[in-house]
Amino acid sequence: MSCIIERLAIVGVGLIGGSFARALRQAGAVRHVVGIGRSRANLEHALSQGIVDEISFNATEGVAGAQLVFISIPVCSISAMVGAIAPSLAPGCIVTDGGSVKAEIVRECEKLIPEGCHFVGGHPIAGTENSGASASFATLYQGKRCILTPTERTDREAYETVARLWRVAGANVCSMDPERHDRILAEISHLPHAVAYALVHAVGTADAEGENVLSYSAGGFRDFTRIASSDPVMWRDIALMNRRALLASIDGFSASLAELRRRIDSGDSPGLAEFFTIAKQFRDGIL
Amino acid sequence: MSCIIERLAIVGVGLIGGSFARALRQAGAVRHVVGIGRSRANLEHALSQGIVDEISFNATEGVAGAQLVFISIPVCSISAMVGAIAPSLAPGCIVTDGGSVKAEIVRECEKLIPEGCHFVGGHPIAGTENSGASASFATLYQGKRCILTPTERTDREAYETVARLWRVAGANVCSMDPERHDRILAEISHLPHAVAYALVHAVGTADAEGENVLSYSAGGFRDFTRIASSDPVMWRDIALMNRRALLASIDGFSASLAELRRRIDSGDSPGLAEFFTIAKQFRDGIL
Ligand SMILES: NC(=O)c1ccc[n+]([C@@H]2O[C@H](COP(=O)([O-])OP(=O)(O)OC[C@H]3O[C@@H](n4cnc5c(N)ncnc54)[C@H](OP(=O)(O)O)[C@@H]3O)[C@@H](O)[C@H]2O)c1
Ligand SMILES: NC(=O)c1ccc[n+]([C@@H]2O[C@H](COP(=O)([O-])OP(=O)(O)OC[C@H]3O[C@@H](n4cnc5c(N)ncnc54)[C@H](OP(=O)(O)O)[C@@H]3O)[C@@H](O)[C@H]2O)c1
Repeated sequence: MSCIIERLAIVGVGLIGGSFARALRQAGAVRHVVGIGRSRANLEHALSQGIVDEISFNATEGVAGAQLVFISIPVCSISAMVGAIAPSLAPGCIVTDGGSVKAEIVRECEKLIPEGCHFVGGHPIAGTENSGASASFATLYQGKRCILTPTERTDREAYETVARLWRVAGANVCSMDPERHDRILAEISHLPHAVAYALVHAVGTADAEGENVLSYSAGGFRDFTRIASSDPVMWRDIALMNRRALLASIDGFSASLAELRRRIDSGDSPGLAEFFTIAKQFRDGIL
Repeated sequence: MSCIIERLAIVGVGLIGGSFARALRQAGAVRHVVGIGRSRANLEHALSQGIVDEISFNATEGVAGAQLVFISIPVCSISAMVGAIAPSLAPGCIVTDGGSVKAEIVRECEKLIPEGCHFVGGHPIAGTENSGASASFATLYQGKRCILTPTERTDREAYETVARLWRVAGANVCSMDPERHDRILAEISHLPHAVAYALVHAVGTADAEGENVLSYSAGGFRDFTRIASSDPVMWRDIALMNRRALLASIDGFSASLAELRRRIDSGDSPGLAEFFTIAKQFRDGIL
């Protein structure tokens, strides 16, 4: 593979940014990678593992001379970061991100990106419940979807470069408008996380009432609640930033649960079988 | 291992009953196993796989001469089955079950079991989302917990025999009263299943509104909703039979979700971080 990017800057060398760097490096698609962050331990780990070639604690210095900047920090910090680095970007630089929410980020970043530079919003549908550079791995994106969210302001060539990098990293790229992204992700990702956190919260609290409930949990419970081990700061930010779509999804879910509760309460045996059968069909359909 | 049971009858040779027979057979703890059920295909599969030595479509005939009868059919059918086989049980026969709900079953079965025979309630905390004899395997109970629910009416020797069989099958046996079992299981198993079914129902229905939402689901969603692939009839029965405890658990969960929703709606950033952090701590505590 010939090199696509001479100098790549990764702002936030965690699970998402670290894995992006690893995958591109392994494919020979980047020459030099600068890792930008705040804590020494994480960046030095990234350096020692060869995820990045150089580290910087100062984003405006770190992005200088980069052809592409990938921002992979919690969503509420992304547009402020773009604002901060804007004056230091090289002419023609492409800025893209991996944030789990898109509409607000894209709207803000398109305003902040300087003339002659380009912003392309993105979100890889891949992850684990672990975080930091040490959780990253080169094959994270293999066979996974990456959603890009171009708008009518998006530069065609910049979009193609970003799409090409994601394909090199192993992802299947698709595109949709930012609002649609946020509604879909609210349903299939943000709602399940909210529900998992609320479930563990509820069961863990029942625990406190003298019954050591959680100690009886078996494999099913552990699998079901694994996503509640995800990073609280990342999910606080996602919940806040995709608030409107997430609230609508929570309300849709609450209505389903209320309907199920009603059928249990009234002893509606055929209604319960029907409810569970429909859900099982939906679930089996995505296997 | 010396043989513990000469003649074992399994009523319902599915995941739970089939795995119990396989494990005991492999350990040499049973001499002859009769499989009892309704559909020819399932029982003939069990016979051809050597899970059972003999099959019967008539429970009253099938249990004749057995020292132990294990009942592993959906919970709402268990006590009726005990009533039906009661006249055919050999003197001294032990009847036990693997049903996921206990209080009502134990109460009913203790009334129905004939003088000189013994009932012991049980529930192995092990399973998968698959069902039928073909889903069974000998190591299902290895290292898993099995809860027995003796009462003051339970025969000590019968209890010890059942406990010994579960240990031979690989399980760690513990005991508690049936009502406590039902409250704990409502929290760690029945509530998560209800929530998973409701979630898939809600997201699958959002799907119908023109956005092909489920097709965007990734690994996290699939893991999270795997338990919604479980058998609808089994879960209908569990929801109906553990109605009271399950409704209380659903209400506890709904209160947690409502609190989370409130914090999202009001943009309570520290409150959200706190909520997610507490849940993550509970979850990480059960790893
Ligand atoms: N995890 C997933 O499943 C997943 C999937 C798809 C998309 N995403 C998105 O990807 C982004 C990163 O998530 P992640 O899972 O990679 O998180 P992560 O593993 O915690 O990595 C984030 C990194 O960013 C650094 N960082 C945080 N705030 C920063 C700031 N204000 N300025 C500079 N660096 C900062 C952190 O290091 P320091 O603390 O040392 O600065 C950390 O190494 C988020 O927007 C998330 O929504 C996550
Ligand atoms: N799956 C789990 O994760 C799990 C875990 C712990 C406990 N349990 C409990 O174990 C029991 C069995 O569950 P399972 O997962 O083994 O289900 P399963 O795989 O569907 O097996 C149940 C078997 O019982 C037979 N059956 C159903 N109704 C019957 C009836 N009225 N009379 C005679 N046979 C009948 C079925 O065969 P035919 O249709 O051919 O009769 C089937 O093979 C349930 O009480 C459940 O609550 C399940």
